[in-house]
Amino acid sequence: MAAPGPGPLLVDHHCHGVLRSPAGRGVFESLLTESDVPAAPGTTFFDTQLGFAVRRLCPPLLGLAKHCSPRDYLARRQELGVREVGGRLLRAAGIGEFLVDTGLPGDLTEPAELAELGGGTAREIVRLETLAERVADTADEPEAFLAALDTAIRTASATAAGFKSIAAYRHGLRLDPAEPAREEALRAAAAWLDGRRPGTRLADPTLHRLLIWSAARTGLPLQLHTGFGDPDLRLQDADPLLLSDLLHALRPTGCAVVLLHGYPYHRLAGYLAHVHPHVHADVGLSLTHTGTRASAVLAELLELTPFGKLLFSTDAYGLPELYVVGAHLFRTALAELTSGWVAAGAWSRPDADRVARLIGADNARRVYGSHGAGAVRAG
Amino acid sequence: MAAPGPGPLLVDHHCHGVLRSPAGRGVFESLLTESDVPAAPGTTFFDTQLGFAVRRLCPPLLGLAKHCSPRDYLARRQELGVREVGGRLLRAAGIGEFLVDTGLPGDLTEPAELAELGGGTAREIVRLETLAERVADTADEPEAFLAALDTAIRTASATAAGFKSIAAYRHGLRLDPAEPAREEALRAAAAWLDGRRPGTRLADPTLHRLLIWSAARTGLPLQLHTGFGDPDLRLQDADPLLLSDLLHALRPTGCAVVLLHGYPYHRLAGYLAHVHPHVHADVGLSLTHTGTRASAVLAELLELTPFGKLLFSTDAYGLPELYVVGAHLFRTALAELTSGWVAAGAWSRPDADRVARLIGADNARRVYGSHGAGAVRAG
Amino acid sequence: MAAPGPGPLLVDHHCHGVLRSPAGRGVFESLLTESDVPAAPGTTFFDTQLGFAVRRLCPPLLGLAKHCSPRDYLARRQELGVREVGGRLLRAAGIGEFLVDTGLPGDLTEPAELAELGGGTAREIVRLETLAERVADTADEPEAFLAALDTAIRTASATAAGFKSIAAYRHGLRLDPAEPAREEALRAAAAWLDGRRPGTRLADPTLHRLLIWSAARTGLPLQLHTGFGDPDLRLQDADPLLLSDLLHALRPTGCAVVLLHGYPYHRLAGYLAHVHPHVHADVGLSLTHTGTRASAVLAELLELTPFGKLLFSTDAYGLPELYVVGAHLFRTALAELTSGWVAAGAWSRPDADRVARLIGADNARRVYGSHGAGAVRAG
Repeated sequence: MAAPGPGPLLVDHHCHGVLRSPAGRGVFESLLTESDVPAAPGTTFFDTQLGFAVRRLCPPLLGLAKHCSPRDYLARRQELGVREVGGRLLRAAGIGEFLVDTGLPGDLTEPAELAELGGGTAREIVRLETLAERVADTADEPEAFLAALDTAIRTASATAAGFKSIAAYRHGLRLDPAEPAREEALRAAAAWLDGRRPGTRLADPTLHRLLIWSAARTGLPLQLHTGFGDPDLRLQDADPLLLSDLLHALRPTGCAVVLLHGYPYHRLAGYLAHVHPHVHADVGLSLTHTGTRASAVLAELLELTPFGKLLFSTDAYGLPELYVVGAHLFRTALAELTSGWVAAGAWSRPDADRVARLIGADNARRVYGSHGAGAVRAG
Repeated sequence: MAAPGPGPLLVDHHCHGVLRSPAGRGVFESLLTESDVPAAPGTTFFDTQLGFAVRRLCPPLLGLAKHCSPRDYLARRQELGVREVGGRLLRAAGIGEFLVDTGLPGDLTEPAELAELGGGTAREIVRLETLAERVADTADEPEAFLAALDTAIRTASATAAGFKSIAAYRHGLRLDPAEPAREEALRAAAAWLDGRRPGTRLADPTLHRLLIWSAARTGLPLQLHTGFGDPDLRLQDADPLLLSDLLHALRPTGCAVVLLHGYPYHRLAGYLAHVHPHVHADVGLSLTHTGTRASAVLAELLELTPFGKLLFSTDAYGLPELYVVGAHLFRTALAELTSGWVAAGAWSRPDADRVARLIGADNARRVYGSHGAGAVRAG
Repeated sequence: MAAPGPGPLLVDHHCHGVLRSPAGRGVFESLLTESDVPAAPGTTFFDTQLGFAVRRLCPPLLGLAKHCSPRDYLARRQELGVREVGGRLLRAAGIGEFLVDTGLPGDLTEPAELAELGGGTAREIVRLETLAERVADTADEPEAFLAALDTAIRTASATAAGFKSIAAYRHGLRLDPAEPAREEALRAAAAWLDGRRPGTRLADPTLHRLLIWSAARTGLPLQLHTGFGDPDLRLQDADPLLLSDLLHALRPTGCAVVLLHGYPYHRLAGYLAHVHPHVHADVGLSLTHTGTRASAVLAELLELTPFGKLLFSTDAYGLPELYVVGAHLFRTALAELTSGWVAAGAWSRPDADRVARLIGADNARRVYGSHGAGAVRAG
């Protein structure tokens, strides 16, 4: 069952399914960027650090020369078919465990399918806003909605590995830190539900807070999106320092908080992980999109973040290529940095190896435990 | 006509004239800094990355040893005379086309003169606030002012390569994103014109917005100052993320926006260029002032900025030395970075060469087209 | 009296006393972090860049192998005793002059004791908030308080090398820039003193401003905490750009301002030191906590900060290890950077050596002069 990865298997604590159907050039390019519109005329999203990293790392896994043209690569991809490409790429990533955010739309692999493709195991991360939207589709009175939401979160907590909030790209992270009082939650629910049509997004600050506090009360780890990412987001509203007071308020719940991504605010995320015992930082997305600059970005994360508080992830979504790129860049960037530090006498080799195990897998195992394990294991 | 530059000719999409008259040490030092006052007692602006870069690169072009003393360098400069120094330095910069912001005061070379000195061609970038101030010097009634301004912008658009706004260091970039309604513009114009004396600066947020929207409506590219620069500026008011909503609002006009400089917010400018198809980022000033750190700063810009969205410029002003430094640092920094990435196998050599052509010239050609070409060509 | 340091003696313009009594593992770890609570279960503050730097640099000074285990190191430390350890480590730091902030609580060495341990001389930096709190403990009427405070500041200025404000982690740096009028100061003092118990902290924005302006009026240098540090602080309230208007307003007083630390806003501090003749930047704490990344952080500081405006410090507190780490990282980071720049031809060797002397000692000598010298000299 173990993937023939280029080193110890990683735990990818934050990722998504891959497309089940073939992707043409337009869809493929759109998944290489965080923009929500096509590239400017005369430009292409292949001309980015991520595009170059894909063209470097993936063609050889499909039998082509590295740095081949996008056209050749996409043709070969089509020739082999989605399942063969997915299997080859996912297994090459060397990931042993996938914690999958299942809250994104699209014809994506379920956690068990993804695990099977990748030769590992999977657990689920429940996206709170998606959960609340589903609840609201059937419970459209405030009292009933809050009761059903509470049940849904508790039910999910029985099998999920953790929760995630995307408040950053709905309302933004300027949230009152206090847990909403019941009256306040009812008013916010009433306002949102009034005249709501199924599928309408949740973007109310009180309801985001309610979700965050409800998840924290379950004791499961809570992932919070910060920094760049989804195009809906205003980057300044995703600054992790906006969470300062909320993180302080959440501390007594004992809930582990993981600040996702963070770039270009990753040093600020590292600071928060330094001063708060329950706060952790993440490398996902930041490394993938910065390509050959991944070691520089990772090095900045390693300035203040305690080594027991940083977690590997890919944030891969849609394309199995993003698993290859995310895992490879993480491994090589960390190896490059620590080898240099060992060569300079600043770190010892055993410490370097130990830190690699912490960030690559052991920190995630400590934070997420085995909660929800077995729920979605590959055959 | 071609300059004997150390590589393909560059397009400098944002620069200024050089002084026509000799500069003593005080004036020379003042042009090495963005401060508006002399250096602190006991210190000199030659003791900066820019000062060291000038002393490294320029003395050999005037027949002196690199790193010679400021005194020797300034003496030699005086000996050779302004025109000889300007010609030697400008031609050594290897710039084939200059897009010149003509809105700065001082006894500066006009675009045609600059082009002649540098052995290239020149086009004009019209500084909107300067244009509006000139209009206001003769049209001091709101209705007449707005009509004359509209005419002036349309007239300028017939020959200019683009427009530029310096709202960042007047009001700052906290601007309402919406195009001002006519009543609003009239009120703002009335308030500004009331009792105004010729030469009084424009710093009204509604009028800045009016200028930006009027320029965008012409379809020409629009440069926006962001990040450090002029000493009038409060740096936090020049954060390019303050433009998030305005950039979103401008998207449908089809106007290409170029975020100038950006340092130390250049990663944020790169993010905006990543998510908005019409937004571009720039290397000018940031590389010049950081000297031997130029490759580190450029590397950060190359994290998220798509390679088809980054443009070379010097932002040189007053001293021809700033052309030498800006162009040399850009060329060597980019070569150093991409050579390393090619050596590591992360990039291919053809891709590296192609990206160098894009950033050095081709992106500017695509964005600015040939609009205004021929208007101010050197003999 | 000279310490056998690994190079010219440094002037540490901002530091604190070391513990007079033995530190167990809990206390030792707590002094390795800016967090105010123990490390998360399963993690240790030894697993940080600072922890690794301590284990690299200090064991050999106590007769152990570098990178030995924390347990072995702490055992050896206990075996040798506080005074022996302090003397060995402090002398190895190679610091000739200590400017000691005496406003921290705890059983810490006084400046004269520290100087004796370290084989150098010491002068005092008076922490304004601590001074005001002491005054308030005996003068609890507004008029009397303001008069006694004025006397205390003037008295302190006769012997101190400078003043320091920690407004950043009390109220934060969002301070009205104007000097408080007498009535305003009286009202603020009355509000703070009303019902105050001895020891209650000062955190009123008007009183912070009063302290800053009163200190500036003495003409002594004024240190302002910025960036990360004390766990009380909300990092975004310690952004040095919040001081923009206050720095502008203080310029005419002639008072030299030193922005301490700054990380991760150190580039912003460098910008302020670039545009304001009276503003300086500092390396302390930022290098210590980033360990093997010190050269990267220092390089960023050296982008815009004029070389005559950057000052070495350790910000060491409690543990003599922090002197070793701070001084060593500064020396090696600067040497690594400038050697590389000299090898690349970007800097000359004499310039590199001169800049090292400026930042290591001469800038501090120029800024602090010899004011207060001799007040607390070691025997």
